[in-house]
Amino acid sequence: MTELVGNVLVGQSGGPTSVINASVAGVVTEALNHACIEEVYGTLNGVLGILQEDLIDLASESQQAIRALRHTPGAALGTCRYKLKKQQDFDRVLEVFKAHNIRYFFYAGGNDSQDTADKISKLAQQQGYELRVIGIPKTIDNDLPTTDHCPGYGSVVKYLCTTVREVSCDNQAMGQGDLVQIIEVMGRSAGWIAAGASLAKRRDHPNDPPHLIYLPEVAFTTEKFVADVKRVLAREKFCSIVVGEGLVDADGNYISAGAKTDAFGHAQLGGAGSYLQGLVEQHLPGTKARLVTLGMAQRAAAHCSSKADNDEAFLAGQAAVKAAIDGETDKMVTLVRGDTDHYTCETGLAPLAEIANGVKKLPKEWVNEDGVSMNFQFLRYAQPLIQGEVALPYENGLPTFAHLDKVRADKLLGPYEV
Amino acid sequence: MTELVGNVLVGQSGGPTSVINASVAGVVTEALNHACIEEVYGTLNGVLGILQEDLIDLASESQQAIRALRHTPGAALGTCRYKLKKQQDFDRVLEVFKAHNIRYFFYAGGNDSQDTADKISKLAQQQGYELRVIGIPKTIDNDLPTTDHCPGYGSVVKYLCTTVREVSCDNQAMGQGDLVQIIEVMGRSAGWIAAGASLAKRRDHPNDPPHLIYLPEVAFTTEKFVADVKRVLAREKFCSIVVGEGLVDADGNYISAGAKTDAFGHAQLGGAGSYLQGLVEQHLPGTKARLVTLGMAQRAAAHCSSKADNDEAFLAGQAAVKAAIDGETDKMVTLVRGDTDHYTCETGLAPLAEIANGVKKLPKEWVNEDGVSMNFQFLRYAQPLIQGEVALPYENGLPTFAHLDKVRADKLLGPYEV
Repeated sequence: MTELVGNVLVGQSGGPTSVINASVAGVVTEALNHACIEEVYGTLNGVLGILQEDLIDLASESQQAIRALRHTPGAALGTCRYKLKKQQDFDRVLEVFKAHNIRYFFYAGGNDSQDTADKISKLAQQQGYELRVIGIPKTIDNDLPTTDHCPGYGSVVKYLCTTVREVSCDNQAMGQGDLVQIIEVMGRSAGWIAAGASLAKRRDHPNDPPHLIYLPEVAFTTEKFVADVKRVLAREKFCSIVVGEGLVDADGNYISAGAKTDAFGHAQLGGAGSYLQGLVEQHLPGTKARLVTLGMAQRAAAHCSSKADNDEAFLAGQAAVKAAIDGETDKMVTLVRGDTDHYTCETGLAPLAEIANGVKKLPKEWVNEDGVSMNFQFLRYAQPLIQGEVALPYENGLPTFAHLDKVRADKLLGPYEV
Repeated sequence: MTELVGNVLVGQSGGPTSVINASVAGVVTEALNHACIEEVYGTLNGVLGILQEDLIDLASESQQAIRALRHTPGAALGTCRYKLKKQQDFDRVLEVFKAHNIRYFFYAGGNDSQDTADKISKLAQQQGYELRVIGIPKTIDNDLPTTDHCPGYGSVVKYLCTTVREVSCDNQAMGQGDLVQIIEVMGRSAGWIAAGASLAKRRDHPNDPPHLIYLPEVAFTTEKFVADVKRVLAREKFCSIVVGEGLVDADGNYISAGAKTDAFGHAQLGGAGSYLQGLVEQHLPGTKARLVTLGMAQRAAAHCSSKADNDEAFLAGQAAVKAAIDGETDKMVTLVRGDTDHYTCETGLAPLAEIANGVKKLPKEWVNEDGVSMNFQFLRYAQPLIQGEVALPYENGLPTFAHLDKVRADKLLGPYEV
C-alpha cells in the first residue's frame, strides 16, 4: 500500500445525536496524528456544503473547541437531509474533492448517509480518483445493519430511562388508580428506543415502570391496549406507557393522523402519544391521561448522555481515520461486542453497500409474550450501552457547549445551484 | 412560651416538584433533634391520608432513605388534589390529630395547600386544641406571595434552560431558515417558568435561543406571533420558542382547545404548543414546526435540579420545625433574599392567610417591550436560583431514588368515607 498524501473532509448528515460531535472530535484528533494528512476540512451541512463548497478549516479551531465537541449535542458542522439525486450532483462532489485535494472522506450518519458515501466512493473509483471513504455510524434509531449497536442509541436510552424513573416518582405520588402517563419517543421503523425504556425497571422488579411499552414490531389493537391499561391500573396506582412514534396496526398502517413523507420517502411521524391519550379518554372515562413528548430533547440530551456511548462515538471517529490511513475504503466503521460476559467493544469494518438503506429490526424474540415488555436477551444487549456519566462543564448553572470559529476554506470553483 | 410535647405530622400536597422531598427530609432531620417531639408521622396523600388515618412512621425509616429523599423527585408521601369541603372533613382532621397527639403539622404545598393548612390551624384554635401549623412553600409555578421565590422553581428553570440549549444545538444543525422549535412548559396563571428560559441565553448574546418567549402576562395575537417568527427566521437559521401553557388572548381566553377545570376550579391546560405548531403550518407554508412537550418531566427532573433550590427546599423544611418549636403557628416559611449583590437566602415567616389563594404575578416591567424576552431585572432575580448541580447516586447507569418502607401507624379510629 502506498501512502496517500492529501486532505481530510469530514461531514455529518441526518438527524443529530448527543454524541455525533464526539465522532467528529475523534476524526480531527486522529487525523492530526498522521503526517500524510495535510488539511482537515469540515463540510457545512453535509453534502450540501460539498456541493456549495462551504468547507471550514477544522485544524484552525482551538483545542478547547475540539475537546468541547466531545460533549456538545447537535451537529456542529451542520447537517442536511438533502439527497444527491442527479449525476450532476455527484460530478460536482468529485470536482470539489479534486479542487481541494480531498483524499479522505469521513461521513457520519445513518442509512441514507452511508448510501451517499457509497455512491461517492464508487464514482471516484470509476473516475480513477484515489479517494478513501469511510462511514461513521450514527443514529439514535440503532437500526444500522452489521454493527452491534449505533453511537447515539445508548445516550437516548439513558435519558429516556432517567425520565421514566423520574416521571414515575411524580406519577406514583399523584396516581389513585386513575392516572395514565404516556411518554412518546422517536423510532420511525424500529422500536429500539421504546424498548430501551425497559432498562428503567430495577432488577427483579418486573412491575416497575414503564408498565407498557408499545413497539412498531407488535401490531397495535385498541382492544388489547385498553385491556392492558385496565390491568395495570387495577394493579398499580398509575400506568406508565412508553410508545414509539412508528406504531402500526395489523395492516401496517401508522397509528397516528397526518403521516407525511420526507425527502427520502420515509414517513414523518408524530402523534402516536396523542392518539393513545385520546383512546384512554374515550375508553376509560374518569382516567387522566398525561403526555410527555420528548421530541428533539431526547436526541440532544448531552447532560444525560452515556459515557460508554460517548466514548464509542469518539472511538468510531478515530477508527475511521486509522482504517483509511491503512488503505481501507468504501467501508463503515462498526462496533463489535466482545463475546465474554464482561462487556467490551472494539471497532470493525463492513462494506458501505451492506449498510446503505438496510434496516436492523429489533428481534421479535426479545419481546415478551405480553407484547409490552422486553426479556432478558434485550436487557443483556442494552444494559452495557447506558453505563457511565459524562461530566459536562457548567457555567452560571448551565452546561456550556462548543462554539466553532468556522474559518472558511477559500472557494476555488464557481457557484453551484442545488 | 411553654414547651409543647407531642407528635409531628408532615404532608405533601398538590403537584410534586423535584425538591419537595428535600423539604420532608428537612422536617424529619430537624424534628429528631428536639426532645419535645416524640413521633414523626407522615400522612399518605396529604389531607386524604389524614381523613383516612393513613399515617406512616417516618422515624423508623433508615437514615439512608431519608438522605435519599433529598434528591428524589415526586412526593414520596403521596399527594392529592382533594379539597377539604364540608365541616365534617375538618372535624375529622382534628379528631385524627387528637387521636395521634399531633401537635405539630407541617404541610408542603402551593396556594391551595396553604389555605387548607390555614383552615385546619384556625379550627384547632377555635376548639382550643394546641396545634402548631407551619406551611412549607412548594411550587414550580413560583406564584406564592410573600416569599421571594418558591422551592421547586429554580430546578424546573435549570432543566428547561438545559433543554433549550441542547435542543437549540440540534435545531441549529438542522435549520435552513425553515425550522420552528416549540417547547411547551407548565404555568397555569403566571409565566414564571417560561420566562426562566431566558437564562439559557449566554450573557451579552441577546439573539441566543430561546428567540421568542410567550407568557400568559402578554396578550397573544396571531398577527404578532407570525411577524415574530418571520423576523427570527430571517435572522437565524431556526426559531426557538418557549410557550407557557396558560397563554391567553386580549380577552383573557386561553389559547388552547378543550380547557377543563380541576377540583379547585383552576383551568387544566395543555395544548398551547400544539396550537402554535398549527399556526406555523397554517401561516408559514414550507416551515417545519417541531414540538417538545415537557409535561411531568419538567417538575420531576431531579437529575438536573438546582443545588441552590435543593438546599433551600431542605432549609425550608428545617425552618418550619424550628419555627414551630419556637411557638410559631399559622405561618408559612418564606425565602428571604439578602439585599447585597452577592446572593444570599434566609428563611422568614408570613401568615398563612396572606398566602392562601394569593398569586404572585410575574412583574410586567420585567418583560422587554418586544413582549417575547425578559430584561436584566428578571435575569438578576432568577440567575441565582439555578446555580449548582446535585450529585445523584447512579447504579447500572441510572439514578437511584428513595424507596420508603412506609410502616403504618396503628389506626385508632373507625373508617371515614371521603
